[in-house]
Amino acid sequence: MGFEVYFKFILTLALVLIAARIGGELAERYFKQPSVLGEVLAGVIISPFALGGLIFRGDPIILNFATIKGAFGLSEFHAMEVISQIAVIILLFVAGVKTDVRLFLKHGITGAMVAIGGVILPFCFGYLATMMLCPEIKVQGWLFMGAVLTATSIALTVRILMDVKKLHTAEGAIILVAAVIDDILGILCFSIVASVAKTGKLDISHATQIIVLGFAVWFALLLIGVKFNKYISKYLLNPFKDSGTMPIFALIIGLLIAYLVTLVDLHPVVGAYVAGLMFAATKEKEEIIEKTMPIMMFLSPFFFCYLGMQVNVWLMVGAPVIATILIVLAIIGKIIGCFIPAKFVGKLTTNRAMIVGVGMVPRAEVGLIIAGAGFLSGAINRELFGAVVAVCLVTTLITPLMIKPLLAKENLY
Amino acid sequence: MGFEVYFKFILTLALVLIAARIGGELAERYFKQPSVLGEVLAGVIISPFALGGLIFRGDPIILNFATIKGAFGLSEFHAMEVISQIAVIILLFVAGVKTDVRLFLKHGITGAMVAIGGVILPFCFGYLATMMLCPEIKVQGWLFMGAVLTATSIALTVRILMDVKKLHTAEGAIILVAAVIDDILGILCFSIVASVAKTGKLDISHATQIIVLGFAVWFALLLIGVKFNKYISKYLLNPFKDSGTMPIFALIIGLLIAYLVTLVDLHPVVGAYVAGLMFAATKEKEEIIEKTMPIMMFLSPFFFCYLGMQVNVWLMVGAPVIATILIVLAIIGKIIGCFIPAKFVGKLTTNRAMIVGVGMVPRAEVGLIIAGAGFLSGAINRELFGAVVAVCLVTTLITPLMIKPLLAKENLY
Repeated sequence: MGFEVYFKFILTLALVLIAARIGGELAERYFKQPSVLGEVLAGVIISPFALGGLIFRGDPIILNFATIKGAFGLSEFHAMEVISQIAVIILLFVAGVKTDVRLFLKHGITGAMVAIGGVILPFCFGYLATMMLCPEIKVQGWLFMGAVLTATSIALTVRILMDVKKLHTAEGAIILVAAVIDDILGILCFSIVASVAKTGKLDISHATQIIVLGFAVWFALLLIGVKFNKYISKYLLNPFKDSGTMPIFALIIGLLIAYLVTLVDLHPVVGAYVAGLMFAATKEKEEIIEKTMPIMMFLSPFFFCYLGMQVNVWLMVGAPVIATILIVLAIIGKIIGCFIPAKFVGKLTTNRAMIVGVGMVPRAEVGLIIAGAGFLSGAINRELFGAVVAVCLVTTLITPLMIKPLLAKENLY
Repeated sequence: MGFEVYFKFILTLALVLIAARIGGELAERYFKQPSVLGEVLAGVIISPFALGGLIFRGDPIILNFATIKGAFGLSEFHAMEVISQIAVIILLFVAGVKTDVRLFLKHGITGAMVAIGGVILPFCFGYLATMMLCPEIKVQGWLFMGAVLTATSIALTVRILMDVKKLHTAEGAIILVAAVIDDILGILCFSIVASVAKTGKLDISHATQIIVLGFAVWFALLLIGVKFNKYISKYLLNPFKDSGTMPIFALIIGLLIAYLVTLVDLHPVVGAYVAGLMFAATKEKEEIIEKTMPIMMFLSPFFFCYLGMQVNVWLMVGAPVIATILIVLAIIGKIIGCFIPAKFVGKLTTNRAMIVGVGMVPRAEVGLIIAGAGFLSGAINRELFGAVVAVCLVTTLITPLMIKPLLAKENLY
């Protein structure tokens, strides 16, 4: 009946979720690590580049489900990516609703400084290191590698902070502010790099447009949430209370806003987070959290496991020296670049400023996306792309390991 | 960055869910009808064949998301179908967990008789009516039209019964038993019809295999749930209790079983329901319901709205006389065929036996799938396919309207 494709998809979905759950459980129980670490590692293991490739070698459908187009060149079928996007959108929406808005506003300046520090230092590191190590890729390539190191994937840190129920600490708020601003700066950085790589010159007006629109949309949504949350309750949420679907409707609005921000080139995840913030100040906050958390718990492991599945372990070993250097610079660059503002602008203790710094380390999928674009445009070569894969994987895996002892010192773990 | 496709998908998902929720809310509040009626109608309205086609005419991506391949011939992108399949699987899983297993077993015989009555009578009606009205399509076509009228889509009735919190009444149990058996008989019927249409003769051994395997798998899963639920709790659920992910893990197992039953040609929805039943006898039942309900509430409107979106309203008017006759026969056939066993075997009151009869009426997507296969194989023509679309839509829309007064008499609405 031609339905094999859906049935196979159900299998893939179930297998990924089972692997994620088992990985998460093992990490938490036997290695006392955040479960998200186990989810990513489970993904690496079942990836089509590893175990999945051996077991499902003869089955192009399952392989297709499991791989992004750019990485494997096989798939026209995007359903897995779509679901992983939805998963991370829901994760950030729930994080938004759970945010303490007053705390978020209070740490606005520090967060902005952390974001800027976390962009400038890694960018310089990436640019200079590749200029010295890979002179052959020229200025376009160096710029791309700088941009890759500026990326931050906030999803991982948010999951860890949410799991230990400490999203609403000063460091949690700073990380979230910084992540939102980092996204705007990251897009700015990427579009500058991409246009320089393409045309050889800088388009100032486009860069200005990105930054103005990005911040305008972001502030507008935040303002609505802080100032007009009574109207949100009254006109958007109240009509759906009798039928018990109010929290679901809030989440759907979150999806819509996640899309709308992409029209001004922001990442949907930023939209989802700010949409969540809109509801964080309403009196319906708790009910929304209660009913959207199970949806988040169902889908978010899919995102992390799928992320791990994108890692081609064979590609990583192509340039071990460069990869190692970039990994070290990626970690040190973010930690120093974020620690200094957190400590001296935000007046945090050393330990808490370190939580902020380490929390900004993971590159995860954001780094892969930028490097993928650079690879496809020819600005960086296959060896460097492999090195970036290693950077993304290691920074993602090392964050839970590094952040746990810091959280433990705060009695948060 | 090539991400437009995902971003558009987020928009489509949000729009479908918003339309579904508004439709559901209007139906419930202003027309005092089950919300699922509003969800299906909202889908018909925003369908690419109606409003969606006007608004998004220039946007092939949104149109592609919204249409099944067979119906529109545009799409290679199955993500919407995949999500709607997952949605209905989760719906039936939750229905399974919520089932009162003792009641389910108690009404096994009645349910089986209802299923058989509900298959035989509509099949004869469909076969004979098209034999008289459309002699040109020959015996292959008549057989297909008989098979179309035997179909039952249980999702709609389950949603209504769940919404009024009366899934665990005698009539609820009978409908659920009958729906599971109906699926096995339906597949049997379809495979016989398809093989006769193709080869001109009946493959007895294949038919026997379907029925034996179908019932064997179904009984095995039921037996595990009833007899060995302590072991399910101990080995499958306990390990995930500390991390709070136990209900999610149960749902993932449901997804896996939904796939596994497709290997013996059962519909994934039957697997999901029986997987739910497995957990219905465990002591974790309530916790699983509490955490999986929000996921079901988030996704199930998507299924019903997407179902409505598949209806090509223009195709329906091609053969109005045949369509009207088939609609009447489809409704009367199911009601009588199911009412008689429910009343005389199950000893239900007239009103409650009518609830069973009406509850089995909706053909929804199951009828469309069978007719679509018949249309593609050339056994039925375009006019008859249009008439089947009308049958599926009308039987789906009329069920909530007919069942509500019956439920009201039982003080269930």
